[in-house]
Order: sequence, then C-alpha cells, then structure tokens
Amino acid sequence: MATKLTSRADDYAQRYNDLVKQADLAENSSVRWCMVIKPYWYAIWENIKDVLDAMFKATWHQNAYFPLFIPKSFFSKEANHVEWFAKECAVVTHYRLKNWENWEGIVVDPEAKLEEELIVRPTSETIIWDSYRNWITSHRDLPLLINQRANVVRWEMRTRLFLRSAEFQWQEWHTAHATAEEADEEARKMLEVYSDFVKNFMGIYHYKGEKPEHEKFAWAVKTYTFEPMMQDFKALQAWTSHNLWQNFAKAFDVKFTNKNNELEYVYATSWWVSTRLIWGLIMAHSDDNWLVLPPALAPIHLVIVPIAKTEEDKQEVLNALQPCLDTLKQRKLTIDSKFLGAYQIPYKVKIDDDNQKTPGWKFNEWELKGVPLRIAVWKRDLEKWEVELFRRDTMEKKFVKLENLSEEIEKLLKEIQENIYLKHSEFTKAHTYKADSYDELKEKVEKWFVLAHWDWTKETAMKVQDELKATIRCLPFDGEIQEGIDPVSWKKSARRVIYAKSY
Amino acid sequence: MATKLTSRADDYAQRYNDLVKQADLAENSSVRWCMVIKPYWYAIWENIKDVLDAMFKATWHQNAYFPLFIPKSFFSKEANHVEWFAKECAVVTHYRLKNWENWEGIVVDPEAKLEEELIVRPTSETIIWDSYRNWITSHRDLPLLINQRANVVRWEMRTRLFLRSAEFQWQEWHTAHATAEEADEEARKMLEVYSDFVKNFMGIYHYKGEKPEHEKFAWAVKTYTFEPMMQDFKALQAWTSHNLWQNFAKAFDVKFTNKNNELEYVYATSWWVSTRLIWGLIMAHSDDNWLVLPPALAPIHLVIVPIAKTEEDKQEVLNALQPCLDTLKQRKLTIDSKFLGAYQIPYKVKIDDDNQKTPGWKFNEWELKGVPLRIAVWKRDLEKWEVELFRRDTMEKKFVKLENLSEEIEKLLKEIQENIYLKHSEFTKAHTYKADSYDELKEKVEKWFVLAHWDWTKETAMKVQDELKATIRCLPFDGEIQEGIDPVSWKKSARRVIYAKSY
Repeated sequence: MATKLTSRADDYAQRYNDLVKQADLAENSSVRWCMVIKPYWYAIWENIKDVLDAMFKATWHQNAYFPLFIPKSFFSKEANHVEWFAKECAVVTHYRLKNWENWEGIVVDPEAKLEEELIVRPTSETIIWDSYRNWITSHRDLPLLINQRANVVRWEMRTRLFLRSAEFQWQEWHTAHATAEEADEEARKMLEVYSDFVKNFMGIYHYKGEKPEHEKFAWAVKTYTFEPMMQDFKALQAWTSHNLWQNFAKAFDVKFTNKNNELEYVYATSWWVSTRLIWGLIMAHSDDNWLVLPPALAPIHLVIVPIAKTEEDKQEVLNALQPCLDTLKQRKLTIDSKFLGAYQIPYKVKIDDDNQKTPGWKFNEWELKGVPLRIAVWKRDLEKWEVELFRRDTMEKKFVKLENLSEEIEKLLKEIQENIYLKHSEFTKAHTYKADSYDELKEKVEKWFVLAHWDWTKETAMKVQDELKATIRCLPFDGEIQEGIDPVSWKKSARRVIYAKSY
Repeated sequence: MATKLTSRADDYAQRYNDLVKQADLAENSSVRWCMVIKPYWYAIWENIKDVLDAMFKATWHQNAYFPLFIPKSFFSKEANHVEWFAKECAVVTHYRLKNWENWEGIVVDPEAKLEEELIVRPTSETIIWDSYRNWITSHRDLPLLINQRANVVRWEMRTRLFLRSAEFQWQEWHTAHATAEEADEEARKMLEVYSDFVKNFMGIYHYKGEKPEHEKFAWAVKTYTFEPMMQDFKALQAWTSHNLWQNFAKAFDVKFTNKNNELEYVYATSWWVSTRLIWGLIMAHSDDNWLVLPPALAPIHLVIVPIAKTEEDKQEVLNALQPCLDTLKQRKLTIDSKFLGAYQIPYKVKIDDDNQKTPGWKFNEWELKGVPLRIAVWKRDLEKWEVELFRRDTMEKKFVKLENLSEEIEKLLKEIQENIYLKHSEFTKAHTYKADSYDELKEKVEKWFVLAHWDWTKETAMKVQDELKATIRCLPFDGEIQEGIDPVSWKKSARRVIYAKSY
C-alpha cells in the first residue's frame, strides 16, 4: 500500500525519490551511487528508445558501438576536454584477480597492472572521433550520422541517486559534415525531431531556443535547447544539440578533401539523451495519486481487474471481455508525429487476476504506477452488459456498455494523451510572465518563466544568477523579437530571453 | 573492391576476419582487444535483439538493468565462482584524474583510491542475485523472469579479435522459481524458444540435447545446448541454458516461503546470448562471394541500382519502380515461428543512386554484404517493362516484368529464407555419421558430426579428446535411443552421443 506522497510544495526532490521507489521503478544497489533499473522503468525507457530510434532512422541516422574504455592518453591530448567533463571518472588499472594465499578470498593481482590506465567512458567523443579520422577522407564519406546507445560513468559527488546515478544509460550522436551550413541545419533539425518526440509522445510543453554565449557547451559555436517547466516551476534542461563547427575535427585532426579538392577540417554536431528524460516524464505529469503516464510511452495501457468470488465467475467475467480484447489486438494506438507520420503502437493490456491480492490493493497499485485506463468488472455489472472504466489522468469513473467498450478505450487513450499535453501546456503558459522591472523579475522568477529584456552581457546574466538564483534558459525561437531596455542594467536590449530557476 | 576471400579449406579463422573487415562489419579500436561495431553489424545485432525480445516477452520475461560494477567482496564470497569465470577482468581502483603539475597532461589522482575495488562485470549473477534476495520472500513473488542486455568485459588472452573481444554485448537471463520442476521446464522451454529463433530466423540447422555431466556448467544440474555445424565441420556452441537447482540460491542465500509455509531455497535457471551469434550467422552461410544473410535478419532486403547516364534517365528509372515500392511499403515479410506465430518485418529497401560509384562497384559491394535481392535497372530494359532481379543465395539473375515485380520480390525473399535453411540442413545431415568402431570415429570426426556409443564415463570422453581432439557435444534429444557398445572402451553404452571438433 502506498505511503503518503511528499507534497509538491514540501520537498520536490524527496517527492521524486518517493515516486521512484513506490512505483517500483528503481532501487539502490550495493554499489555506491549505482542503481538497479527495475522492469517498469526499463519498459518506459525501451518505449522511449524505440520511438527515438524510429525518428533517427527516419532522418537517416545509423547506430554503431564503440569501446567502453578510453586510453588515458586520449584525455591528455585535449586538456580542454578534461576541464569540461572528465575529471571524476572510473579508472581501470589492473586486469586480473587472484586467490589470496592462506585465505579464502581474492585480491587484485599486483602483477597484472595495465601499461596505460583505461578510463570507463564518461562520454565517447574522443574514441569516436579517433575512428572517424580513419573513416573520413573525402566529401563522399560525408555526412556521417552515427548514434551510440551506451552506458557511461561519471563519479561526481551527487545528492540524488535516481536523478543521476554514477552509471547511466544514454544515447550520444556524433555527426560529421562537409559544410558549416549542413552542420547547423543538422543541429537545428535534431532539435525539431526531439521536440516532436517530447511534445507528441511525452506530452511535455517546452520553449525551444538557443543558449546564450556564456551558457553554451564550450566546444560549440551554437547550442540549441528546449526547456520544459516542472511542477515546482523550475526548468529541466533535458536536451541540447550542439553545432561544434570544426572544433572537434581540429582537436582530433580529422580532415577531408572537399568538392574543390582542398583539404579541410570536418564540421561536426553532437547531442545526447539520457535517462534524465524519465525524470522529466515523471515530474511533469505526476499528481497526488503518484504517476501519470502518457499512453504513448506507458508500458501498460489498460489493466483489467476482474472481481469475482469463484474461479467460474472470474472466467465468466473474462469471457465477457474477450470480444473487446480481440478487437484491440487487431488495432493500434496511433500517435501523430511530424517526423514519423502516424506512428502505431500495439495496445498493451494486463489482466490482473491474481487471487492473492484484493481489488482495492490492485486499484491502488495501478493508479500509482500511472496506467492510463482501468476496467473493474463485477459479475453484477455484467448483467447490465457494462463495466466500470477508470481514467488515471482525471481520476474519473464511468460505466460503459460492453458493445462500446473497445471503441471507448481507443477514444479515451487518444484523449488522455492529448489531455496530458494540454494540461502541461496550460500550466506552463499560466506560469510564463513578461517582466519589465527588476522587482518584477525578482518576484516572478520564483514561480514563473520570466520573459525579460537582456543586454547580451555575461555580467548582467551573472548578476541575476547571484542575486536571484535564476539563469537565462534560452533565447526563444518563437514570439516577437522587439528591442527594449534590460531591467537589470538599464542598457539597450535586442530581445527578450527566458529567465528561470533550474535543476 | 573486394580482395580475394581466404578459401574455406585454407584458414577458417582468417576467412572470418576477412569477412568481417571486407563487409565493413567491425574494426579494431585503439583499445587493445576492443572492437568498433560498425553500423551494418550493429543493424544485424539489433534485428536479432528485436526478434529475441519479442520471443522473450511472448514467454512472459521482463527486461531490467543492474550495475556495470561489482564490488570485489562479491567475488570473494564465492571462491568457486571465481574459479569459473572471473579471474581475468577489468579492475577499477580509482575514481578521479587530475592535471599533472608542470605538464599539460593528466594523471590518475592517487588520493582518489576506492576503499574497495570494483570489478567491471564479466557476468552479473552476483549482483543480480544480491537484488533477488530482497525481491523474493514468498512463492507469490515467483517465478521471477528477468533478462538484462548489457556489455560485459573479460580480459582473457585471445587470438581472434572479432570472435570475442574483451568487451562484448550480450543478454543474460536469470530466473527464479518455486519448484525444481518449474525450473527445469523453464530451461528446456528456453532451449526451444532459442531453437525456434535459430532455425526460422537465422536459417541454421542444429542438434538439440543435453551436455554430458563433465561438460556442463559447474553450478548446473542440467545444461541444455544445441550445436550447429560450421562450414569447416566444427561445432559452434552458440547457446546453452542451465537448470541451476538451488545452487545459486544457496550461494547468495535466497530463500522463500513455499505454499506449505516452509522456508526453502529458490530454484534457478540462467542462459546467455552474445554477439558470438553473429559469428555463427556469418560462418554458417557465407560463400566464396562473401556474406549471405537470411532475409529475416538482413539490414537490407533489396538494393536497387538504377543505371542511367543522365539525372533525368535516373529519375525515369526510379519512377518506373515507384508502384512496386509503394506496394512493398504496404506489406510485410512474414516469418513463421513457433513462439511468435506470423512475425512481420517491414521490407527494407535501399536505393543506391550514388553517382560517384560505378554499377560494377555497387554490385560487388552489395553482394559481399549479403543483401538477399538486387534490382539492376537500365533504361533500355524499361522499354520492355522489365528489370533484372538478382538473388544472392544462388547468384541467379532473371528478368521480371514490372507488373509482377513486387509479387516476385515477396515470393523470392520467402524462398531465400527457406533455401538458406535447407542448404545448411542438407550440409549438416550429409556430414553426420553413425560410427561403430574407433577407427571410423577417428576418420569421420575430422569432417563429420559422429553419432557413437558412449559408456557414460569422463575417462572415455577425455581419451577421445586427447587423441582425436574431439568432444561430446551433446546427448541429442531426437533420434532413437538404443543400447550398444562404446567403440573406445568396449563397455556397454545406453545410447549414442554426438562427437565433434569445436571452437
């Protein structure tokens, strides 16, 4: 039975941890700061992966796999690189264990020391670009559009296990192009692809835009981002894509012969997706009854709880539902997407006929796991040819005639998917505010995304960060671009940007 | 352009390496004994994974994910375990790098030494069963049917990079059951599931059976296996499943309350699938023109090479094929499987209209990559409303009228899938021999799977292994079971077993 969920106002981090544990998504492992991803979480992650994979294949990207280990010298090559990511990482120094004499345990064999230490990848650009150097010689080899799904390890000190464990799953794309324009087009296109996914599958509203100069990835000339608002009004930076210009190619010495037969450095982009996405999915939609999952990514669409005293009654109940289940098996949940068209997902139905648990226990269990629809069916309702249908997002119940059941389920799943997005978009819009004075910015940034003018200086941005603990999340693509006055510095501003608190 | 393929007779290991490199499947990396898996190999592996995943879900298994690292003490607990797998493995001793003063490189920070070393998993039972201990308390928690897809690392000395690299991808299943019977049923069922996959998707003929006592996994009471024959007449042990009885549960102290309310150790099974599968797929079917891929797992089913002098002609050629492509888009390749029923795979078509390469180069490229079907289309053939259709398995060409094209493609892909299996099964059967004397066993085991009587002693098996370099691959399930005389020891034998050379 669920314990009380920490309220949204109280402690948002604790609330997330509660959700993860109670919904049986993940747990702590015996390895410090590593977690066990349990089947329900893993199923959501697989659904995310499947849709993204289809999107990336639809845009001509390919998957490949590079080694887990990176020679230490690869990091030395590029001191800059180390500054950025890689100081806190797992270092492999030995390659053998041996039995300890006179004792029944084992020790690391001191004679099996590696000549050069290997680093467990915190990210893979060094080793991937090491390969690209051999793969790319001519413009005919370009573009090279490669994705890797992998586990990476970062040993930073952390405070919240489930938000980012030391080891985490991610996907990293590293593309190479013949021209600067093509690379920028790729980085912007992938922002759109990803935005399509986040809107239509995750049901999350967000602002797309560019990072200001001082917030972009050190190697990039442009960093594109989108920023959704969580329920505590903070921005979650869930995704960025980078136009890296020739910076990677210069660091890793990757040149190609262009169409004019001249030797030139390759243009690159990169972007990443990690299990942090799941964090966004959980926190954007969950309510006081725990998880709410959009049907497009839910491991189970519909749970059926037959309520009967005898095995015969249970069978009768299930038999009555069979025509509906047969119909659903023939049909698909269709999600409309810009890049995938009408994406089809088989309906996933779970029949929970476990005799050891009470109906009340089951209702609670599937509610807190966010299953979009539930059918509870008593034998007495069958006499009226109807069942009770419950939708998780609104917590509404209604009775539906058996003959209309499959149609109603299909209709409701579409409706729930849309409603979840609508709710999140209304919430975000209601908490987006145009501020024109510093006092207004100060007050509103606690609970709003604040659109304010900015004088384009790091100095001003840092002042806001120091005083208000808020940062410029992006220069949004949408909305009017008008000149004005920066409310912090009183200097001229070319356009408004979005200030917000963040994780 | 392809260099000459090492002949099958010459050097089978070299032949495999040639195939991997020439077909652009994988390459050596800068990390010793680690390889880069290139997109074409990765696509085959993803196809394998998708089908297996569907099969395992159809039999109610779930995916989850456990940490990459295992505390050293977990290995110490079970010395037996270390004897079996884990001596040669990657050991993480530190968790931080730092800049080296006075020099632009980096070093491992000596102050960042882990209190307890972590081992990069060579296999995961220790950490998985560590979790199971908390998950299982009652018979109501059973069965627990969990699969993990992961990378594992083993640092053994090796001779062939692409057969098994230090890091490799695999899937490992660890199941827990309330009774011994249920565990044995699971181990046997999974052999059938896997056999279904290997026969109907990989097109590989094989003998199913049980391993003799001295060849089984140390922790198992039964090890089931199947053994396909490669083209050099050796057996490839591509897969085994183990009924582990209560051995794991005792080692990891996992007990449950059974239906009689008694505390009992859990019964377990385990099995693995690794990228070694790809080795089998490549070596079972490849011919002197390099790769031959069964359509069920091929990354590309059909490649279209338009041959035209001008862009307009090329467009005309492609336009003529459009109705066929439109039809294929609506339809699916159907593979019949015992556990999946009619499994449907979208047709995967590649149009190779690269102007920089000649038709001859393209033909060669797609032949050596084993693409099942190729359409070459000249403008002059279009005047007769026909195109040239080439099938890779038989290397036959024929002209097909445009109006029959999609139908012919669908028919041929089914036929190729069946033909590949048929060819492999005929090859294996033609090289399976019943021997009744030691001389016959000695002669035939060079190029045959030899069915011979065995007296059930390790001593006899070892004698054959020493003298003939052949081992007992399995006690086959199929075929008559008759008593006889062991041709090595002249003692009584209960049944024939299969002797063969192997990898």
